Amino acid sequence: MLPRGRPRALGAAVLLLLLLLLLIGFFLFGGDLDCELSASWGVGGMGPYRLVEEGTPDDPVSPPQLLQVAIVCAGHNSSRDVITLVKSMLFYRKNPLHLHLVTDAVARNILETLFHTWMVPAVRVSFYDADELKPQVSWIPNKHYSGLYGLMKLVLPGALPAELARVIVLDTDVTLASDIAELWALFAHFSDKQVIGLVENQSDWYLGNLWRNHRPWPALGRGFNTGVILLRLDRLRQAGWEQMWKLTATQVLLTLPATSLADQDIFNAVIKEHPWLVQPLPCVWNVQLSDHTLAERCYSEASDLKVIHWNSPKKLRVKNKHVESFRNLYLTFLEYDGNLLRRELFGCPLGPELLQRALAQLDEEDACLEFRRQQLTVHRVHITFLPHKPPPPQPYDVTLVAQLSMDRLQMLEALCRHWPGPMSLALYLTDAEAQQFLRFVERSAVLSARQDVAYHVVYREGPLYPVNQLRNVALAQALTPYVFLSDIDFLPAYSLYDYLRASIEQLELSGGRKVALVVPAFETLHYRFSFPSSKAELLALLDAGSLYTFRYHEWPRGHAPTDYARWREAQAPYRVQWAADYEPYVVVPRDCPRYDPRFVGFGWNKVAHIVELDAQEYELLVLPEAFIVHLPHAPSLEVSRFRSSPAYRDCLQALKDEFHQDLSRHYGAAALKYLTALQQPRGPT
Amino acid sequence: MLPRGRPRALGAAVLLLLLLLLLIGFFLFGGDLDCELSASWGVGGMGPYRLVEEGTPDDPVSPPQLLQVAIVCAGHNSSRDVITLVKSMLFYRKNPLHLHLVTDAVARNILETLFHTWMVPAVRVSFYDADELKPQVSWIPNKHYSGLYGLMKLVLPGALPAELARVIVLDTDVTLASDIAELWALFAHFSDKQVIGLVENQSDWYLGNLWRNHRPWPALGRGFNTGVILLRLDRLRQAGWEQMWKLTATQVLLTLPATSLADQDIFNAVIKEHPWLVQPLPCVWNVQLSDHTLAERCYSEASDLKVIHWNSPKKLRVKNKHVESFRNLYLTFLEYDGNLLRRELFGCPLGPELLQRALAQLDEEDACLEFRRQQLTVHRVHITFLPHKPPPPQPYDVTLVAQLSMDRLQMLEALCRHWPGPMSLALYLTDAEAQQFLRFVERSAVLSARQDVAYHVVYREGPLYPVNQLRNVALAQALTPYVFLSDIDFLPAYSLYDYLRASIEQLELSGGRKVALVVPAFETLHYRFSFPSSKAELLALLDAGSLYTFRYHEWPRGHAPTDYARWREAQAPYRVQWAADYEPYVVVPRDCPRYDPRFVGFGWNKVAHIVELDAQEYELLVLPEAFIVHLPHAPSLEVSRFRSSPAYRDCLQALKDEFHQDLSRHYGAAALKYLTALQQPRGPT
Repeated sequence: MLPRGRPRALGAAVLLLLLLLLLIGFFLFGGDLDCELSASWGVGGMGPYRLVEEGTPDDPVSPPQLLQVAIVCAGHNSSRDVITLVKSMLFYRKNPLHLHLVTDAVARNILETLFHTWMVPAVRVSFYDADELKPQVSWIPNKHYSGLYGLMKLVLPGALPAELARVIVLDTDVTLASDIAELWALFAHFSDKQVIGLVENQSDWYLGNLWRNHRPWPALGRGFNTGVILLRLDRLRQAGWEQMWKLTATQVLLTLPATSLADQDIFNAVIKEHPWLVQPLPCVWNVQLSDHTLAERCYSEASDLKVIHWNSPKKLRVKNKHVESFRNLYLTFLEYDGNLLRRELFGCPLGPELLQRALAQLDEEDACLEFRRQQLTVHRVHITFLPHKPPPPQPYDVTLVAQLSMDRLQMLEALCRHWPGPMSLALYLTDAEAQQFLRFVERSAVLSARQDVAYHVVYREGPLYPVNQLRNVALAQALTPYVFLSDIDFLPAYSLYDYLRASIEQLELSGGRKVALVVPAFETLHYRFSFPSSKAELLALLDAGSLYTFRYHEWPRGHAPTDYARWREAQAPYRVQWAADYEPYVVVPRDCPRYDPRFVGFGWNKVAHIVELDAQEYELLVLPEAFIVHLPHAPSLEVSRFRSSPAYRDCLQALKDEFHQDLSRHYGAAALKYLTALQQPRGPT
Repeated sequence: MLPRGRPRALGAAVLLLLLLLLLIGFFLFGGDLDCELSASWGVGGMGPYRLVEEGTPDDPVSPPQLLQVAIVCAGHNSSRDVITLVKSMLFYRKNPLHLHLVTDAVARNILETLFHTWMVPAVRVSFYDADELKPQVSWIPNKHYSGLYGLMKLVLPGALPAELARVIVLDTDVTLASDIAELWALFAHFSDKQVIGLVENQSDWYLGNLWRNHRPWPALGRGFNTGVILLRLDRLRQAGWEQMWKLTATQVLLTLPATSLADQDIFNAVIKEHPWLVQPLPCVWNVQLSDHTLAERCYSEASDLKVIHWNSPKKLRVKNKHVESFRNLYLTFLEYDGNLLRRELFGCPLGPELLQRALAQLDEEDACLEFRRQQLTVHRVHITFLPHKPPPPQPYDVTLVAQLSMDRLQMLEALCRHWPGPMSLALYLTDAEAQQFLRFVERSAVLSARQDVAYHVVYREGPLYPVNQLRNVALAQALTPYVFLSDIDFLPAYSLYDYLRASIEQLELSGGRKVALVVPAFETLHYRFSFPSSKAELLALLDAGSLYTFRYHEWPRGHAPTDYARWREAQAPYRVQWAADYEPYVVVPRDCPRYDPRFVGFGWNKVAHIVELDAQEYELLVLPEAFIVHLPHAPSLEVSRFRSSPAYRDCLQALKDEFHQDLSRHYGAAALKYLTALQQPRGPT
């Protein structure tokens, strides 16, 4: 979705891209999105801005007030959690929101891309670097599973912009079951001295009687839980909060070795000393499902739960006789289609509504309207959905790049066995399918063992498969200098990863030579299939009729220029020439041209990419020992639609024509050969 | 899910079945589900019951009050609508609900099965026969698109149980955006004389100025909209409501030819005459998105919408600059996983919790726990999801029975071309996928043209594919005397439907002869494939190696007893004997044994069914001109799991062992041969 480094891209593709970037930029960086903000203000940092803080939230005629929410989030798994929390918040909210996310580099990378592409109206996001804040809390010994990040809520008054007077602070493991404006409204109950709103801790932990020799930190009675906090930042700063908590923590640490519950221990110790600071909140605003929870006292009397807090390390697997109901609420938002939250906020005009306008300008009578809409769709993207360790930088390393949807999940294990190197895979999924995918990986020993496979979820929207947009997401996230642009239903030769790296080194490609290494493609028609362990074995299978060159029966033009006859005998890489409809699988430098996103659905998506490589004068070199084999599957829905619908084929033709026009515009006379080639007599399409 | 007519089923299967029926029965017919109901009461009709009507809904300590909701619903499409409405209601509700559904036979059939299998705690459903009520309104000429059913809200005071004092009446095209208890609470604002609560009509319709010569029915000002009604049934009955509205309607019909807006015209005319009857409700309780809507006046000032009413005949396609937001809310519930609404109501104990107990009794250490859980899962079933016309009764007619999930949708068009007769198909889908399926059918000319294909949606839950439960749903819904038990990835010979009917007639099967007609199965490995138009062509392809007998390479035992060599030459049906692992595709009488639901996931699901046919002494007769051909596809996730997981294979073995034990228990010594057969040396598994 966010291509980078395209050196000389095609005209219309660039235009489309610019439009998308403009749209994305608009949603995050400009426009009068938050009803009551009259000035523009910094994002992505701590730039200066003005806020109108006081409002009348209960008055239905005044524009809804901007609410401020801060969350600390680090790593891949917490990023997924925070998205579920945000979905629950957005579902019920009726106010514009400003999210303040204190993140490590991993979470920032994920969440920045997510919010950029999510484009929820009247939501603004600012990021704060957790690593910069670390020194302020790293001196505190802490035994809590959340680690150092668990302590960072203490430093929010200093970390958040000085202009920010109030903020709601949420843990990543809470789920909202009501409108967060109701929580914000509780600020109005604060007395002049109160600075912190908290719900009582719903266990006996701080009473110190859970087990023998249990020595908790000091607290008022049962103490308070810090999963949900209302902070009067202005008053905390005035009161010298930083000195206050540091002093208290230092004193307690003279007698206790470490915090057990991170920031919560310190908040409680401070409150014990200065009880007038706290405004106790109704228990429904933080229903705690910890291991020793007494929360039932709260929710059995109040049918109206507001916030659920999964504060056991067991999270959703916690034992509790009502946990099924809580879990259903959590699953509701986990699986909720986040695209539906792009809805406009009533009483909060959308502003210029660029995307709407672009969509409105489409010709409703256009036979290819569905294609146009799909091209304009900005898909929500969740990069590195699962924990991922980037490969160590190596000059000849290659990432396998591919895209898939649910119906190809069963390919992943085999692919992992065949390709021991890094992979960058884009998955086109609904929110619910993303959870099925997660369980699928967790259940697979083969997949769980791999940290070098990056899975990027692109959320489904619209009827056509955005194949090239998916490829571009996977390509943009590849971190090695070279990429192998493959398809999910191919298995590489077991040796391919090593062989490619050796070839890149031998061919001295790292000097910036523009080369696309062709990996010859074959296919089997049998479900069960003994994969050839060498080129010799592959050739034997080919001679026995157990294997064919890829699409030999249906579409030989697609791979004819690879010259399989020559490949049989070849001992060294050999150069081949581009010809019409050529669509080989290639290894190219990471900064290669992007795929043309106009090609959605079935057809011509790879062909156009190879045309552009040729137009940019990439040499095509076939590797003599490389091969991949396509496994059989039923035709995809897209292929079926292509074959059965003349209108679909006409639209594809229209896309091709536009592609060629752009090609001429961009490459001038040199592009003539692509048009001429098309006009020659051809085989079946 | 709800098998019927199983003559002599196997022990454990029966036990499982009984448990399920017990559970289902419990949820609908018994138990103290509604917190405040102390007596049991009639369901599915108008039986006597006691209600505690007056409560204190705002008191958090008293158990939540039972709320009464009535909806009129007829036909397949309205049934889908009403489910979306109910989902939105259940999502926000915190009270037990009693739904009173006035339905035609189609809607009753669908909704009864749905609620039986949905098992939402603290929801009770009563059905009332709309056809019985028709005479009371059929005398009124009516031009509204809802037809006669549009008038039925008028007769609710008489149709609903005399004990029922208050009810909320909703149109099927409304969506709730808040807790219905808030609407119920508005009854408290009624004066002593008021009997009907209504929201003002949000268009100028009743002002009569929409176009020249527009003559609307009489109304107070803009009149009221009847998509959402609060009815004081007790007072209406006392006030002689029936006489009142009939008199008014008769009078107006002296000057106007018909009602334009059905019941709404008559309600308005009555209110015009007796304005003290109406309690006007806040506009947010019925935000009307009709073609000429003025609703923006309501929602632009109130950010807090409560009920959206899609009261344009264009429904979601209505033009309105805010429609995208409303649509997102609607889609939220359309695609919401209804299984999540099975959650317990806080403050409202679940009662005996039979299903929970059954689940709790499972051994957590059992290696096959996942299988046990899946077997106990009661799947929500939506029969005839799309409009369906049952085939006219014919003595030799055959329904093709099969099941599928999303990844096989592309088979449906080809299947329709190959099988011109009735089909009963079970689809295993999520709620969101069911909508994708709906769009898929709407877009396909081939599928839209067929009214004799019944699609039954079985909602997904759990990790294993409940293949036999799906087959049983499709089988139970087949309406012809014979069924062809097929699988979705097979295409029948073009002549098969006619040939089967002729064969049944010739073989005089209708006398109750226990015969299973075997349809020989073949397979192709090519995606593109020219389907043989005759047995001769099929044999030629077989000889040319373009076709094989089914699973010839992987599992020849599955079809060996069919004796393909004999079939080549056969001119007449011939009898074959059962042998171990035989799993032919057969045509049997509709009252054949059900599939054993213990087989979930991959393996042995058809084999066990054929064993039971044999145990029940069905003759196996191979038809000489019948054939089906399997098209290639990638192995399903289930097959992949089976192949890669020893634990999965062990569990399947355990299921098989239990099956054989039940077989012996049921059929005694006669069942010995099945065990013996298993112990013989065998081919690859």
